[in-house]
Amino acid sequence: MPKFDITRRLTAEALGTALLVATVVGSGIMAEALSKDVGLQLLGNTLPTGAILVVLITIFGPVSGAHFNPAVSLAMALKGDLSASEASRYIAAQILGGIAGTVIAHAMFGLPLFDFSMKVRTGSAQWFAEVVAAFGLVATILAGIRFNRPAVPWLVGLYITAAYWFTASTSFANPAVAIARSLTNTFSGIRPIDLPGFIAAELVGAVIALMAMGWLLRAVGSEQTK
Amino acid sequence: MPKFDITRRLTAEALGTALLVATVVGSGIMAEALSKDVGLQLLGNTLPTGAILVVLITIFGPVSGAHFNPAVSLAMALKGDLSASEASRYIAAQILGGIAGTVIAHAMFGLPLFDFSMKVRTGSAQWFAEVVAAFGLVATILAGIRFNRPAVPWLVGLYITAAYWFTASTSFANPAVAIARSLTNTFSGIRPIDLPGFIAAELVGAVIALMAMGWLLRAVGSEQTK
Amino acid sequence: MPKFDITRRLTAEALGTALLVATVVGSGIMAEALSKDVGLQLLGNTLPTGAILVVLITIFGPVSGAHFNPAVSLAMALKGDLSASEASRYIAAQILGGIAGTVIAHAMFGLPLFDFSMKVRTGSAQWFAEVVAAFGLVATILAGIRFNRPAVPWLVGLYITAAYWFTASTSFANPAVAIARSLTNTFSGIRPIDLPGFIAAELVGAVIALMAMGWLLRAVGSEQTK
Amino acid sequence: MPKFDITRRLTAEALGTALLVATVVGSGIMAEALSKDVGLQLLGNTLPTGAILVVLITIFGPVSGAHFNPAVSLAMALKGDLSASEASRYIAAQILGGIAGTVIAHAMFGLPLFDFSMKVRTGSAQWFAEVVAAFGLVATILAGIRFNRPAVPWLVGLYITAAYWFTASTSFANPAVAIARSLTNTFSGIRPIDLPGFIAAELVGAVIALMAMGWLLRAVGSEQTK
Repeated sequence: MPKFDITRRLTAEALGTALLVATVVGSGIMAEALSKDVGLQLLGNTLPTGAILVVLITIFGPVSGAHFNPAVSLAMALKGDLSASEASRYIAAQILGGIAGTVIAHAMFGLPLFDFSMKVRTGSAQWFAEVVAAFGLVATILAGIRFNRPAVPWLVGLYITAAYWFTASTSFANPAVAIARSLTNTFSGIRPIDLPGFIAAELVGAVIALMAMGWLLRAVGSEQTK
Repeated sequence: MPKFDITRRLTAEALGTALLVATVVGSGIMAEALSKDVGLQLLGNTLPTGAILVVLITIFGPVSGAHFNPAVSLAMALKGDLSASEASRYIAAQILGGIAGTVIAHAMFGLPLFDFSMKVRTGSAQWFAEVVAAFGLVATILAGIRFNRPAVPWLVGLYITAAYWFTASTSFANPAVAIARSLTNTFSGIRPIDLPGFIAAELVGAVIALMAMGWLLRAVGSEQTK
Repeated sequence: MPKFDITRRLTAEALGTALLVATVVGSGIMAEALSKDVGLQLLGNTLPTGAILVVLITIFGPVSGAHFNPAVSLAMALKGDLSASEASRYIAAQILGGIAGTVIAHAMFGLPLFDFSMKVRTGSAQWFAEVVAAFGLVATILAGIRFNRPAVPWLVGLYITAAYWFTASTSFANPAVAIARSLTNTFSGIRPIDLPGFIAAELVGAVIALMAMGWLLRAVGSEQTK
Repeated sequence: MPKFDITRRLTAEALGTALLVATVVGSGIMAEALSKDVGLQLLGNTLPTGAILVVLITIFGPVSGAHFNPAVSLAMALKGDLSASEASRYIAAQILGGIAGTVIAHAMFGLPLFDFSMKVRTGSAQWFAEVVAAFGLVATILAGIRFNRPAVPWLVGLYITAAYWFTASTSFANPAVAIARSLTNTFSGIRPIDLPGFIAAELVGAVIALMAMGWLLRAVGSEQTK
């Protein structure tokens, strides 16, 4: 396994999050432009997002771990796989990369580079949905790393494909992506004022998953191996 | 291969079935809310279900076998891979987990937590469809375990993706999921009164598959290995 | 690699072709019933077919080779992997299995068990499309066996997923399936009178693929291995 | 690893590009004929393209490398994996194969074999989208080869599935395919006059990816291995 310096790791986190957000925001714009059926719009947003996640986690995973998500970096730090200082730099890179992703999507579609979303996403049902979404994502990653590490890119891509539809919030499950999505007034946007509720719910879901899977994955008569 | 105690195994069965049902019910609600085209609604129900099955069987398989389905646990018990006492506890965990999944989906979408379905699913054609659906599912699992165990999560996800469309019943193929779906009056529901016919058909299909594949997979000049 | 007797191999060919045709015909009926958009109908026919092919080839491949297709059995016989007597029995099993598949689909959807299609599929453009469809299928199988045998189920499923859309004929590419589809007057049907043209075109495509790939896959300085 | 002579390698490049273009153009014609929803048309164009890429790269990769794309052959030549003379012959084979692919698609659908597209695809936003599209494609290929070569067919298929939707240009990302698509006045066409802008943008994106990934993938304390 090659080892990469912190500059390359942060670059991988930023670039990967940028391409992820460019896909989420860009495919939402495309879908909204092409179809009037909102179900089809969500499908045109779902499939590209699931597909690009498999790609990005495969190609950047060996460099940085391919978190692209502060909730994941937090879980990894709490699990002891990332130092607090690394985690905070990862999170900064993810947020900056995510914002760049929105700008890239806007530039490709000829929209003003920055905007603010006016799409309301709030209330206890939505927050509960984000707890579930982040719980499922982090549980998938933790168990995937434990049992079948090469499958993790696929598991995350497939999980998000499902979660776009089964969680009422379309599964943001990612504070950096949520921040980036607050800067686009298109299909995938979220009002800036709704960010704190979503981000808090996502972190809660991640921590619950870390605790629950920490217990569940402890096998009989053997210490857990990473 | 790590070994897990019965508490963790039952938890994995309950949690996996809960997430499976939350996906089936939740994506049905989402699909119905977003599109008026029933074909697109079924597509929005199919893709998340197929995708989450790959994820859940991969991450819970090493803990409990990832049955999530009384028909599968019954087949495994008849095959001798599960004791009667384990099978009955698996089935209880699946039913309870499934019901929790419906509650979780309702909570995410802001619906009353419990409801009863009014969707009619009955008659000999539907029952025959469920026999076929469960036959195909159990045959897929038995042959998959025999020939390509790592592929089983994919095989089940792909089989259900197909069976949503080719069986007239949209392939419940799972008594625990059927019970859970009787408690939602949304896209994926089934009237409680229609449950016995579906469950009986599913168990018949599973037993036929067990017998047919038991014969088919016996190779020449070699005892069958598990 | 276990070895299976000819009875089990023929059963696998018949059962696999039956499930394949049940999927093609059944999902076509479902799609036509649920949506008025013909593009969506084809999508609802495509995804189940591609998905079930991956499943069926994985689970029956080790038993019989999972041809499910007289054009493939012909190519294998010409290639020397199957005796003429085996090939003719394979083809009989495929045709009978295919017809059973149509009957099963009709029974699940409550239709008369036998019918004749009135869907016109004829003319030189359609025939050329079937030549291309069968060429691509057999080329995919031959090169897949040569370079990456475990991937063959996926390659065939993905190839057919593409070929439903890019060939004007929606890629029957299979004489046994074509015969079975002449017995359903639903989405996926074909007039019995149009069968000879389709079957001839499919066999031509298969033979061209066998010759072209036989030449192409012969590496420098090494005899071709199977 | 078998080795193939230059004739077979060029044939593989031409045949693979022909089948790729036949899929892109053919599925676009099919989609446009079947649905009035442009989002669904793009979906009916996307899924076959992504699927066939996995197939074609798997089956022709061991013969020629399965570039099917002058931007990829250019990157490989700059990287030192292909001589200038090989690269130029690869590119000629790709362009000729691509044009043949359009002709094949037209023949299957009963259209005049040659035509000129009237679909306008120009302007700085579209060009920037093509830079991003080609950057992502070449970055995916370079990192995929480095970290997980067997996954490359899947990575490319999934990347293009996403890029059809998230880039405003629907991700041509391939000069040979762009030339071939200028010869069809159907869904996937591009005006011949718009080719230079697209091709220049694609080459720029490829070169940026080569430089960026050359730096990013250089691990600490180890020379980069191919």
